[in-house]
Amino acid sequence: MKASQSKVILYSFYRSSSAWRVRNVLNYKGIKYEYAAIDLLKGDQDNPEYEKLNPLKRAPVLIIDGQILIESLPIMEYLDETRPEKRIYPVDPVLRQQVRTICEIINSGIQPMQNTTFMDKIEKWFKQDPTPFVVHLNHEGFKILEKMLSKTAGRYCFGDEITAADCVLVPQVYGSAKRFGFGLTEYPIMEKIMNNLLEVQAFKDALPAAQPDYPGDQKLKQ
Amino acid sequence: MKASQSKVILYSFYRSSSAWRVRNVLNYKGIKYEYAAIDLLKGDQDNPEYEKLNPLKRAPVLIIDGQILIESLPIMEYLDETRPEKRIYPVDPVLRQQVRTICEIINSGIQPMQNTTFMDKIEKWFKQDPTPFVVHLNHEGFKILEKMLSKTAGRYCFGDEITAADCVLVPQVYGSAKRFGFGLTEYPIMEKIMNNLLEVQAFKDALPAAQPDYPGDQKLKQ
Repeated sequence: MKASQSKVILYSFYRSSSAWRVRNVLNYKGIKYEYAAIDLLKGDQDNPEYEKLNPLKRAPVLIIDGQILIESLPIMEYLDETRPEKRIYPVDPVLRQQVRTICEIINSGIQPMQNTTFMDKIEKWFKQDPTPFVVHLNHEGFKILEKMLSKTAGRYCFGDEITAADCVLVPQVYGSAKRFGFGLTEYPIMEKIMNNLLEVQAFKDALPAAQPDYPGDQKLKQ
Repeated sequence: MKASQSKVILYSFYRSSSAWRVRNVLNYKGIKYEYAAIDLLKGDQDNPEYEKLNPLKRAPVLIIDGQILIESLPIMEYLDETRPEKRIYPVDPVLRQQVRTICEIINSGIQPMQNTTFMDKIEKWFKQDPTPFVVHLNHEGFKILEKMLSKTAGRYCFGDEITAADCVLVPQVYGSAKRFGFGLTEYPIMEKIMNNLLEVQAFKDALPAAQPDYPGDQKLKQ
């Protein structure tokens, strides 16, 4: 393998929840990587060079094993298949299916309807502040998640082992709560899981404020 | 295994694209199943008995191996892991990742922003016909798909072998084109793949019009 093929590079934006999922997995598995910042607010994703890497023009892109990989969940599956130590998808097919189900409820059921791109599109089209609509959809999703996790949760989403579901849950819950300013009192199970996960060093290191492109709390308030 | 555990039941609605994906896979793999119709337009999904099966209150639910499985992509992965004959996720991890990427672009990038539930929510909230907005988003997604498939397509999405990507593509493209009445002239690669897939018996048998709950063309026009 050539040197250029062995280098791992993550194109990330500190607050992109999809990039954050991949940071959780890379950190948890102890895979060293170079951080390449893509400022989604400034439009770095529209740069033709970046578009060659990701035609979807969003974060993340992972360069690994000489490959250009996009889409967070498929990247997570790839990492678990090629680096099975600290497995995030359980071996048992039924449990794997359940873990993937929680990932998908967030990935296709909650996240697409509350990300910045979607909100911009709604605002532009309907000429209304999309926030109340998006917060309403977010709570609908969280209610279902809380119910489903009540059947499987231990210390984390599935018992006491960290899985892909935890790597996807943290960015969604932390991100929504921060952006829309809601607490988790209605969601005690998720709140407990979040508290437990945020004690794990790999997850702490993946937080937006720990990323090189984090602008600092001062700037965020502007 | 008890008899009740070996029976396979698919809770499906003829025009639900998520149920349709699973029908494609079951048919392609030759897995026999019983069809349980859930009329999403009449609100069968709100029945508390159904909600016990699927807290998301939508199709599909697959009862198999004594398990209750929800969410189409995790169901497809489960079927491929437990019934590997006629594999729909390639063995090579890089190719698997690429197949999953196409599935996710449709599953989280296109489908959630054009299904009936979403359109109803938009209409209720913004008091406007959601169709032009939804068609606009749909085309954005299709343009990216066409571009990505131009790199991998043969007879089907990935060369000449049927994969999970094909099982997800058909319901999306067929469904959008029918519902929103657009042709595929802008998307020649997808058009070619669709024509090839719709010659495959397993895919023909999964079409809405071949399902027991299909109301007939006459009723659809009403």
